[in-house]
Formats: sequence, structure tokens, C-alpha cells
Amino acid sequence: MSGDSMGNLFKITVWGESHGPSIGVVVEGCPPLMKLDLKKIQKELDKRKPGQNKLVSQRTEDDKFEILSGLFNGKTTGTPLSIIIQNKNSKKKDYEKLKNIYRPSHADFTYEAKYGIRDFYGGGRSSARLTAPIVAAGAIAKQILKECKIDILAYVKKIKDINCEVDSCKITRDKIDKSIINCPDIKKEKDIIKLIEKTKKDGDSIGGVVECVIRNLPVGLGEPLFDKLEGDLAKAMMNINAVKGFEIGNGFQCAELNGSQNNDEFIKVGGKIITKTNNSGGIQGGISNGMPIKFRVAIKPTPSICQKQKTVNKNGKEIEIKINGRHDPCIAIRAVPVVEAMTAIIICDHYLRFKVNGV
Amino acid sequence: MSGDSMGNLFKITVWGESHGPSIGVVVEGCPPLMKLDLKKIQKELDKRKPGQNKLVSQRTEDDKFEILSGLFNGKTTGTPLSIIIQNKNSKKKDYEKLKNIYRPSHADFTYEAKYGIRDFYGGGRSSARLTAPIVAAGAIAKQILKECKIDILAYVKKIKDINCEVDSCKITRDKIDKSIINCPDIKKEKDIIKLIEKTKKDGDSIGGVVECVIRNLPVGLGEPLFDKLEGDLAKAMMNINAVKGFEIGNGFQCAELNGSQNNDEFIKVGGKIITKTNNSGGIQGGISNGMPIKFRVAIKPTPSICQKQKTVNKNGKEIEIKINGRHDPCIAIRAVPVVEAMTAIIICDHYLRFKVNGV
Amino acid sequence: MSGDSMGNLFKITVWGESHGPSIGVVVEGCPPLMKLDLKKIQKELDKRKPGQNKLVSQRTEDDKFEILSGLFNGKTTGTPLSIIIQNKNSKKKDYEKLKNIYRPSHADFTYEAKYGIRDFYGGGRSSARLTAPIVAAGAIAKQILKECKIDILAYVKKIKDINCEVDSCKITRDKIDKSIINCPDIKKEKDIIKLIEKTKKDGDSIGGVVECVIRNLPVGLGEPLFDKLEGDLAKAMMNINAVKGFEIGNGFQCAELNGSQNNDEFIKVGGKIITKTNNSGGIQGGISNGMPIKFRVAIKPTPSICQKQKTVNKNGKEIEIKINGRHDPCIAIRAVPVVEAMTAIIICDHYLRFKVNGV
Amino acid sequence: MSGDSMGNLFKITVWGESHGPSIGVVVEGCPPLMKLDLKKIQKELDKRKPGQNKLVSQRTEDDKFEILSGLFNGKTTGTPLSIIIQNKNSKKKDYEKLKNIYRPSHADFTYEAKYGIRDFYGGGRSSARLTAPIVAAGAIAKQILKECKIDILAYVKKIKDINCEVDSCKITRDKIDKSIINCPDIKKEKDIIKLIEKTKKDGDSIGGVVECVIRNLPVGLGEPLFDKLEGDLAKAMMNINAVKGFEIGNGFQCAELNGSQNNDEFIKVGGKIITKTNNSGGIQGGISNGMPIKFRVAIKPTPSICQKQKTVNKNGKEIEIKINGRHDPCIAIRAVPVVEAMTAIIICDHYLRFKVNGV
Repeated sequence: MSGDSMGNLFKITVWGESHGPSIGVVVEGCPPLMKLDLKKIQKELDKRKPGQNKLVSQRTEDDKFEILSGLFNGKTTGTPLSIIIQNKNSKKKDYEKLKNIYRPSHADFTYEAKYGIRDFYGGGRSSARLTAPIVAAGAIAKQILKECKIDILAYVKKIKDINCEVDSCKITRDKIDKSIINCPDIKKEKDIIKLIEKTKKDGDSIGGVVECVIRNLPVGLGEPLFDKLEGDLAKAMMNINAVKGFEIGNGFQCAELNGSQNNDEFIKVGGKIITKTNNSGGIQGGISNGMPIKFRVAIKPTPSICQKQKTVNKNGKEIEIKINGRHDPCIAIRAVPVVEAMTAIIICDHYLRFKVNGV
Repeated sequence: MSGDSMGNLFKITVWGESHGPSIGVVVEGCPPLMKLDLKKIQKELDKRKPGQNKLVSQRTEDDKFEILSGLFNGKTTGTPLSIIIQNKNSKKKDYEKLKNIYRPSHADFTYEAKYGIRDFYGGGRSSARLTAPIVAAGAIAKQILKECKIDILAYVKKIKDINCEVDSCKITRDKIDKSIINCPDIKKEKDIIKLIEKTKKDGDSIGGVVECVIRNLPVGLGEPLFDKLEGDLAKAMMNINAVKGFEIGNGFQCAELNGSQNNDEFIKVGGKIITKTNNSGGIQGGISNGMPIKFRVAIKPTPSICQKQKTVNKNGKEIEIKINGRHDPCIAIRAVPVVEAMTAIIICDHYLRFKVNGV
Repeated sequence: MSGDSMGNLFKITVWGESHGPSIGVVVEGCPPLMKLDLKKIQKELDKRKPGQNKLVSQRTEDDKFEILSGLFNGKTTGTPLSIIIQNKNSKKKDYEKLKNIYRPSHADFTYEAKYGIRDFYGGGRSSARLTAPIVAAGAIAKQILKECKIDILAYVKKIKDINCEVDSCKITRDKIDKSIINCPDIKKEKDIIKLIEKTKKDGDSIGGVVECVIRNLPVGLGEPLFDKLEGDLAKAMMNINAVKGFEIGNGFQCAELNGSQNNDEFIKVGGKIITKTNNSGGIQGGISNGMPIKFRVAIKPTPSICQKQKTVNKNGKEIEIKINGRHDPCIAIRAVPVVEAMTAIIICDHYLRFKVNGV
Repeated sequence: MSGDSMGNLFKITVWGESHGPSIGVVVEGCPPLMKLDLKKIQKELDKRKPGQNKLVSQRTEDDKFEILSGLFNGKTTGTPLSIIIQNKNSKKKDYEKLKNIYRPSHADFTYEAKYGIRDFYGGGRSSARLTAPIVAAGAIAKQILKECKIDILAYVKKIKDINCEVDSCKITRDKIDKSIINCPDIKKEKDIIKLIEKTKKDGDSIGGVVECVIRNLPVGLGEPLFDKLEGDLAKAMMNINAVKGFEIGNGFQCAELNGSQNNDEFIKVGGKIITKTNNSGGIQGGISNGMPIKFRVAIKPTPSICQKQKTVNKNGKEIEIKINGRHDPCIAIRAVPVVEAMTAIIICDHYLRFKVNGV
């Protein structure tokens, strides 16, 4: 049973491989009569695309998308939107020499073992290139949510040991977009850029933490017991390439606290019930409580590095490799729009579910 | 669209409330002709049940289960197993006074807001009592997995600031079961017990971290892009009451490393390809790689505490409460069998999916 | 992957066997705050239950149901309703002698072959007894639909060669309920009763056709391409025990017509667009068009007959049997409330889907 | 909740509209390492495509397909196959005049009412053009089933009042393919061709019945209670454009029989248990019994006719229309490959489910 789809009422099915002719997504559940803003979709894709600057992968894809169905005179018809993106700058030759080699911490070995066959060009289906259609679908989800004022912002929170200061209540889209590394802390931005440049020069890579905040979400999204809002967010995040951890609210820190310190007392402000603190991160019992939802994801350093590494090949022979491809020294940077897109898709799905189940 | 089920080929649907007449689960996908060991199911339920000792909730439930369907002469028939557990020690009166009050960091407020109605006895459906049928279903999943030698062990890794030393390769069922707090580090066990006793005396609660290791898993479980093994594990864990974080392998630590430090080199040992280190935590590209899967979950301190807390009631009036119920000073202890059960259900589901999709 | 559930937003999961301790259903998707009329549920069950009169099976079950969850002070809470019905009049002994025998046109042979094990008491899970929980769930669906004035009526249309005259626009609940064989054509009722009595005396059984009409359905239910309303109705009907055919509108008759005869012209009556004829049976392109939906199902004669039949046993030996159980001479009679229940569940599910997808 | 997919383990998601740039399907669940025969897929598409001869629609589409993902060196990789077919011969102008008109017995009115917007070019998504990607997916399903010798054949059984004689046990692919109207009864073929020609000349259309037989199916496919094999076949068939009825085995005829006439006695032939007769049509209790599965579908006359018809337009004004498009005088002819494809998809899905659930 394949795992190519996510969502229930708002649903995406993603197909394609890194170096195939094209990649794409079928988006279902978009309400009819919506005027889609195609420029906004392209803008999201542009944020994710490689080759934007020297800090990211040098594969040059314009990532222009085309919508093949579900639109009529610029408006959605309630039928599935089929989105296609061409793969233009594929360099198959670069990968021929890797066809029998299992790159460390990549998915080469596991795909080969699972399916008995593997598209080795650029990682095939395991490539982060497949996040492009996700970002396109997320941009549609955002347009649906925007109508209800729901707002989703992700940004770089930490790169290696450089921690950023961000006030998640005041952060704006502008502040994030101004930074070429999606980091709204201007002071730390420079340090991070320097660190990435140095890392690249060393032929190495570095990890990071991305934070995401969802604001203006109504109370009531999330379906206990098994589709709790944090459950679905965690799954979506862990499904993003290179993500190794998820925490919501104060996350792992809660393990070190007493209940008397950790509990969020309810208060009434301006006729509205809110919580004084937000250690819960905007969700209680699996259901949004109206406070901002805040979570963080840990992103590992890109496994492709230019330094020598030991590994084995298909025949089990131990060998040494050095990967000279077009990879990102710090994939956490480009993970930011992907985190936002995945979040938007989950929230959009739960928003539609909420409209059915809620009161 | 309700969220009462989890799993695809192995699937559970859980019903019931904390103080209703009974709670239960329908288990689908259990292969036919399996001789179910009912004692083992009861043993798992006994590990989770309240009232076992002075460190946990004093609600006394024997948690005896009954299987109403799907068994014939002790063997599974391939049709759904309906499991029922009676609620015997419900104390409805204790909760009458809370019926209009939103307990801090509980689900009272969000359930009321979502559904417009709330079963306030013992938290109703949001109660951790609903983990009992999950544990029963997990015990069945374990029996299916045991036939393939797959082994799942969870244990207390940390309580507040007390970190335990556990070698996840050598840990055994016995070592965990010998500890009344599911902690295989004998030295730390005493400190933790003392800390829990003190916390209880103070009318407070504490958080903790539970670790889980899955051993002898074949290579190939997990369905990219959106049902990656770590994605489904993360969702299952975050759906457990009180869980606020999930990390796999070296988790959040990876964010502070270079690729050259973090990558897991492949080596060949005894004719088998394995990785030298296991920072990936047994999964690469969403698919198990044959190494032990290791993950941790952060569990918040029980929100019910005997100390005074401020909150608001249904009418928005600010009030002060003190919860004198039968709650756990450290719910992380009793979360251990639940983590194991949820893991077993996910792994069992993916094991069946693997048999269809794999080669 | 098990097939124990039906529905998406309104969903049922049925468990149990004919002679197990009990049978039941978990109902999900019932909106919160609904005051359930329990008497109406029982009334539906009473229409289906055996032992009502001499024309049906003499197994005496009172089919009293209990709701174990999802209700609070008589109102639904939006969480799953777990319904249980005891099996009281099981006669296991009657079936011991059949344990190695494959009854003709029963499911004994296929269950044994599929699962390698079979609960042979009363047909186990393949028994029509499993339609009792379906009828209970259908009665809940009807209460949801009643609020929107949607009305579902099924009745006997034909038994063997006796065709009934029924005006599906004027038919009322009362007229059907007055007939002990659910046949609103008073003239034909007597003939049919005589025929059933004679058939019973002969130790034989007879087939029939049940018709169902859905009135006051809004325009817009049904989800093309693959969850068209007629598709889901057909599936639900074919899943009822003994059903061998389904046709909607003029059904198989359309094959013999010209387009100029078969097409339903649109007209405007009282400001509303309707069709002049209703050969389409209330659905066009998979979506309800506001006209009454009308369909028929063919129900085979009960396979259990008291006459001698040849068959083979488990060892492949050819033998002769005579089934002296408590079976229905004409199962089509008792299929009527089941057809209504299944229809109500499908329509309720599509009604909730319509509210999400429609405009 | 959209209905764009069908199947569970083998699953298709179809997107597109009649006059959009292209149409397509994402096929999931195809086992890895299969060498796909692309010519066979094209051959199936050629059987369905319009413009083949004078008896069908004169829209000229070559229906060449392209596979954009999931193939590597000609072999399946276990990842989704994305198939695209261009719309080349769209004639948008023909439909401009129909944009405010509800054609009788078409889906114009219901789509408009459901979504509030409608792609009126060639019926948009409601067009039978969307069966092309289904046929492509079905051709892949057939290749999977062929490996297990499972064989599916559909053919014209009846056109208007001309009944064909076909021995479903002896029928071969060749016999069907030799007939330009997919009718293996050579004698009746001529009469039918004459009738279609006359109907076309009259500007009218006619209905028909298509029969389908599945041979060499193992015992054990089908998942009671709610995914019985006949249930899923019925749903698939009723989801095909213009289908109004489904019956299996002796179908509606069973309603007129006694149990003693209708029951299929088991016998042993050559060491194998089979049934003497096959009134059940190869399924008992929802599970295949190893006998050929045989069913029939009723197909209404094409609603587009060149004769004058009354109808109303969007403003509710009563008008008269005459449809001079490129439509089929007898759509039942071209429904044959679609019936086969849908059957193959359902059987393939159940075959994979059988491998998980069966023994």
C-alpha cells in the first residue's frame, strides 16, 4: 500500500523522480469558485528552488509550473488540480558512477533493498526535488486558509550552534523574506551566512532547526484520538527529507518541569478565553485552543558532502567516495518553504474536517 | 471526519469514555489461524493499569478484557476482533464540581469548544484511560511481530533532570519489568522513585522522556513519500496523551553537527551491510535499514495537580481550583507500555504493507 | 486489508458472528448535540428481527441494543457511538453436524478457503444476523437525514412472479408498516403471503425484488468520478446478503430504448427546474438532480432449504444434506429494513461530503 | 471529500477534463520490477478511442500516452506511475452555444448546481473522455493479473432488442477483437451494425448490455462485510458513464426462482471442488469461489442526439435544442474496453488484498 498521498478532505498525491521528464502533484479538495493567484504559487516555488544564490544547490531549475486540470476561466471547479513541473537541468551523467554505490545517510541502500530496483539519478524518488510539487500544493492551501485569516510562518531558528532570537507573535512575512536564508534575526543572519560559506568551502554541511508558527487559527481543529492536530503536524514534518525531530510548545523542555510550572492557566482577555502562557503550543487534547501553534523541527546536515567517506557498494565491497554534485551546504535553509507548505496542507485538511465535525 | 482509527492493513478503532460503562477497540487485519495468547494481552494491560503501586493513580481497575468476536476455538478467524473492558471504579461524583471548569492544560476547554458538549467525568474521551484498549491491541500486534522475531522495548530514559544510562542494544524485557517505574538503570531508579514520592507529597507532578528501541526489523518497512516509517511513528507518539516531542536517532542533536560527523558510513559485517554508527536511528529515506530503530518522546508533567491554580469557568469567570483526584504524579511511568503498544501497532501495519509492496 | 467498514464522513464498522456472545457496530461521524431517539432505533431493529411472525425465521432474538459510548445525557458528543446487541437464542448444536459440510450457495466453502478456518455456527460472520447492527446504524443515519427532510422508503416490489403496483411518489411509511411483508400493494400482499406459506410447506424458498425511493434529497450529492451516488448505492446494496442485482431509474430497460425515448427533458415547474420523466432515477453524472432516487435490488431465494440437496464435505466427499434450521422462506421480506438502513448510511455519508464539497 | 480515486492497494487517481490540455492518471501499487509492455497499453487505448470507424464518435484523437514517472529502464520501480494523454482534437467552439443550456440526461445541470461552476466544453469532467486514462490503468492491471493467469473478457451481449449468444466459457479475445463492435456473435453482429447505422441516420441513439467474464480467478478474493467482490465490481461498473444497472450470475432472474432451482450444488471434478451450476456468478458470501465470475451491465442510449429536444437553460427558460456534435450512436460498443479496464483494476486491487489477508 503506497504512501504517495497526504490529507483527507484536502489531499495531495505526488509523483515523479529527480531526473525524470517531470514531477507533479494532483490536488483534491480545493473548494470550487476560488480565483487562484498563480503568481503567489510561483513565488513560493521560487523560494524553494535551487540555484537562487551561492548558499544553495547550483542545479538551475526555473520550476515553472503548469495547471492541467481543475481550473476554468481562472477559477477552481471543485475537480482535481493536476500540477506539473518540468525537470530541465538534470545531469544524469553525474550519477552514473554512483549507480552501484550506497551513499552514507542517503536512501540508496534502503530503496534498493525495498524495491529491488532503484532510480539512481539524483536520488530518484528519494530526492528533495520532490518537495517542489508539495510547495505548489501548499501555496494553494495557503490561499484557502488566507480567506479565513489563518497565517503560517516558518523561519530558521538555529543553524549549528547559532541560536536566533525571534518573537513568534511579532514576526512578519516581510522580515523572513528579506533574509536570503529565511532568518528574521538580522544580527545572527550574518554569522550564519559566514558559517555556511565556510562549511561549503570545507566541503562539508551543517544541520539546523526550523520553527513554524500558525496564527489566527480557530479553536477546534484536530480529531482525537488518532488524528490529533499535533499528530498530523508531526507526521507531515517527519516526512520532509532530512527531518529527525519534532517538538511542539515547549517540547522536550516539558520533561524537565513540574506541572505547577508547565500548566497553562486560562485567563479572560477582552471577552475571550486564552491561556496566560503557551507551553502547550496552541493545542490541548489534540485540538487547537486558539493560541498560536508553535513547533520546531530538527534538520540534519545534507548527507552529500565533498569530503572523503567510506561506504560499501552493491556487491558489498568497502570503498571510498567523494560526492562532487550540486548539493546544499545547509539544507535547513531551503526546508523553510517546505515546512510552511506541509503545515498549510495539514491545516487546510483539518480546517475542512473541522467544518464537518465541529459545531 | 472522525479520527478514531489508526493503521491501514492492521487497524484499530477505539471507542469509549473514562467513566462510561465500558471502553473498547475493534482490531482489524490480524491474520487468521493465529493462536492468541490471552495471558500476554492481560499482562500488558496490567503494566498499564492504575492502582498498581503508590507511585501511580489510585483508581482501582482490574482492566480485565473480553474478546467478543473474531476468535474461534482460540484461533483468529481473520475477521475483526472486538475487545471490551469494563469501567468499574468510576467516581462520577468527584467530577460534578468540575463540570463548568476548564482545568489548565487539560482538554476541557477545547472539547467544549469543538463539540459544544463535553463528557466531564474523568475527562471523558480525552482521558488517558482510553490507552487501555490501545495496549490490548498493541499486545496482539506484538504477537504477530514476535513470529518474525521483531522486538519492541520502551523504558524510562529521563525523569525531570535525572538521566538514565541504557544500552539500547543490550537492554532486555526482564530488566525493564523488574523496575516498578519501567527504568532499567538500577542506580537511577532509586533517585527517580524518591523524586516521584516527593513530588506527590508536594501535590505536584513531573515530566519525563521515554525511549523506545525496535530490534530485528527487516530492511524495507516504510512507504515514502508520505507514510515514511518515522512519520507514522511520530504521529502515533504525538497522539499519546501528554506527549510534546518526538526525535529519532540522534534527533535534535543532529542540528548541531556537520555532515561529516553525522553521516552513517556503511560497512560490511559478517556478510551483512550495516552502518557503523546509527545517527539515522534505523531509518533512511523513510525506510528501515535493518539497524535498531531508536526514538525518544517527551512527556509533560500530569496537568492534574493538588496545588492551587488559577483558571476560568464556562462563563468566563476567573476562579481558583485545586484538583484532588486520583492522578499520577509522573505519567511518563505509565506511558511506557502505551509507547510500546502504539509502536507495535505501527510496525505491524507497516510489516503487512511491506509484504505487499516489497520484493 | 479488511472490509469491515463503510462510509467516509459517516462511517460504520461492524463486528461479530451469528452465534458469538454479541454483535455490534461503531458509528463515527454522527454530529454532536443530537438528541437520539432510542425508541426509533429499536423500532427499526424490531422490523428486521427474526421470529416476528410465521413467515420468517423462528430464531427468537429480542435484538435489544445498548449504546456504550458517545452519548452524554441523551445527546451525541461527536465521539464514536459503540452499539452492542446480545446473541441470546443461539443454537450451536444445530450446526455441529454441518461443520465439515459446504452448504450449496452459502459462504461456507469460500470462507474456509479464504481464511483456512471458519466459524460454522449459523454461518459465523457470513450470517445475515450481521445486518442487525447495520439496521441500528441506519436508524441513526435516518435521524440525521430527517432533520433535512430527506426520506427513505423501501418495500417489496416483486416476489417470484407476483409484481406489485406501487406509486413511488405517493407511497407512505404507514402503508409499508401495515403490511407484515413490507408490501404496500394490499391486493398482491395476500397472494404473496399465500405463496410464502406454500413455499415454506414445500421446504423451499423464493426470491424477490425490493424497491427503494429517496425523496426530498437536495441537488448535488455524489462525487464523480469514482464515488458517484449510484456507485456507492450499488456497492452498498450488493454488499447485502443474497443481493444479486441492482438497477436505478429504468435500469436494464434503458438498454432497449432509443435516446429519444430515454432522455429526461428538463422543465420548469413552480420556479424549480425538474425533469419531465425520471428514467435517470434521480441521478445524472453521478450527482443527485433533486428528483426522487429510485432503485431496485434482486434478492435470491434463501439458500437454506429443507429439501434434499447434493454437495461435498471438507474432504471432498459427495454427500446429501437437508437443512432443518430456522431459516426464512423468503429473505426478501426481511431485507426491506436492511435496504433502507444501507441507503440511509450512504446518503448520510454523501450528505456530509456534500456539505464540504458543494457550494 | 473528492471521489477521484478508486482502489486501495492498487489505486488510480484520474484528473482532467474533456477539452483541457491533457488528461491523466496516477497509478499506485504496481509491483516493482515488472517489465511493462507499452504496446499492450496502447492497444487497449486504441480499442476505446473515438474515430476508429463510422459507428463511433468522429472526434479524432490518437490517444498516445506517455509515462512520466515510476519506470526505470522499462521496469516499474514500485513508485507511482504518472500517465498523461494529450487532448488534441478539442473543438471548443462547438460548445460555446451550449454554455447556458442543460442538455437532457447529461450532467450539465447537476455539475452546475453542485459546484456553482461548470466546464461546459465537451461536458468537462463528466465526459466519457475521462475513461481513456482508466483504460490505460486497466491495461497495467491486466499485465499484473496476466502473470497469475487471470483473464478478463467483456463483450456486447445485447443491443436494443438484439440478444447475442455467447458461451462465456469458450469465448476468446480473438473472437471479440475481430468484431468492430466487440460482439463475438457473428450472426448478430451484422444485424447490430445495421441497427446502429440506421439509428445514426435517424439522429438517434440506442442502449445495450455488456457482459464480462473473469476466468482463472483463485478462490478467496473479496473482503466481507463491506468490500465484497460483487460490491466493488458493482460500484466500479455503476461509476462508468451511462451505466444504469448491474447484475451478477443469474442476476434479476434469481428473484423469480425457488431456492431448489437457484442453489449451486458443489461437486468434485478432477480433485477440485466446483459448483455444478453457476447461478452465483462465481462469488459466494462476497468471496470468489473459483468459478468464472460473470456479470452484465446495462448501458443507456447516448443522451446526445441530433433530434430536437425540449429543455431549459440556466435562466430557467424553456428552449428547444438539437445537438450536432461528434457523439456515438451506441456508446455500449465503446464501453466494452472500459468495462474490462474497470474490472481489471478492481480484481487487481482485490488480488493484492487477498495476498495480505488470505492464507
